Amino acid sequence: MILFMLGGKAVNYPNGKRSLSKIRSKTTNQTFSNRGMTLEEDINQTNQYYLDMDLAIIHKKPTPIQIVKVNYPKRSAAVITEAYFKQASTTDYNGVYKGRYIDFEAKETQNTTSFPLANIHEHQVEHMRHVLEHGGICFLIIRLATEGETYFLPAEPFIEFWDLQFQGGRKSIPTTKIKEHGYLIPFTLQARVDYLAIIDQFYF
Amino acid sequence: MILFMLGGKAVNYPNGKRSLSKIRSKTTNQTFSNRGMTLEEDINQTNQYYLDMDLAIIHKKPTPIQIVKVNYPKRSAAVITEAYFKQASTTDYNGVYKGRYIDFEAKETQNTTSFPLANIHEHQVEHMRHVLEHGGICFLIIRLATEGETYFLPAEPFIEFWDLQFQGGRKSIPTTKIKEHGYLIPFTLQARVDYLAIIDQFYF
Repeated sequence: MILFMLGGKAVNYPNGKRSLSKIRSKTTNQTFSNRGMTLEEDINQTNQYYLDMDLAIIHKKPTPIQIVKVNYPKRSAAVITEAYFKQASTTDYNGVYKGRYIDFEAKETQNTTSFPLANIHEHQVEHMRHVLEHGGICFLIIRLATEGETYFLPAEPFIEFWDLQFQGGRKSIPTTKIKEHGYLIPFTLQARVDYLAIIDQFYF
Repeated sequence: MILFMLGGKAVNYPNGKRSLSKIRSKTTNQTFSNRGMTLEEDINQTNQYYLDMDLAIIHKKPTPIQIVKVNYPKRSAAVITEAYFKQASTTDYNGVYKGRYIDFEAKETQNTTSFPLANIHEHQVEHMRHVLEHGGICFLIIRLATEGETYFLPAEPFIEFWDLQFQGGRKSIPTTKIKEHGYLIPFTLQARVDYLAIIDQFYF
């Protein structure tokens, strides 16, 4: 389920640890804003900064796992010995900012011209629709890795692109459209993906 | 880590599945409202009903797991072969209702006279404090299993009890105090733990 490509060859990491940053340093140009850090690491660091500064409470949800077998050794912690990754039914991040419900999904693409819609699952889109209906602030954070730029794309235009694919539209969102409908997220040393700056500007 | 007591004897479930309902039917009086259903099952059913009726978007977060080893068999899904349960750093449930951020923890106790504070972890309480500060609606759902009653306890009085334990106070909240500071959550066939009824009454 989790496979990484290195020079066209699939690389399996038996310890389950991702070495995405290593792979990236070999395959893409590094920019200051994502030097060796994955988008997830940058967002986690940003959320921790928001928490420390008491600005917002946003957490990444744990990875959904289907547990099949657990051993309970005497006098030590339970060991899960068989489990599988499950598809997420919601987005990865949510929380609260100035009393408002915040909900977003984060994706990184190496693609230079567009963002493939296959990166997002149908039920995640359904979740986004629901969040919007119920007054939440919902968006995607999309990193265009080759450009080293990270965009805030509100769920509304994203869902329009999503729906169009079933009416003969494209299966991906052109990078130009992401830039047109989205906002470049500023990078700061304190908050590497400072998405609250965008929310402040457009939602309050 | 997950052990259940049956007649004083610890029972290990090698398949990792809980048989709490079975245990309960032998050890406690069943009432209509929790016949064979765990609190978690009842809340999941309620959240699904809220989702289906388009009333609120509330989900349980996946169980946090520390993944140690993953195998990647050729042409089939990755198998996690060693993993451990991690302590949750936030509460279990969150989402959005009428634009407001909702956040709660759910606990069932077999204890007849009080709710032991050890059921909740320090960083979960810190999380609750933060949620309140940022304008979220935060509470606990506590089921008194022997009485078959489920209470909505706002985070504010809960945190007061929590803090008192470090000033020589009790390590548990007496059932009488839960009833005094909390609200009995109505049971309906559609929503087995209809906590939105309480939120409607006291928060909007």
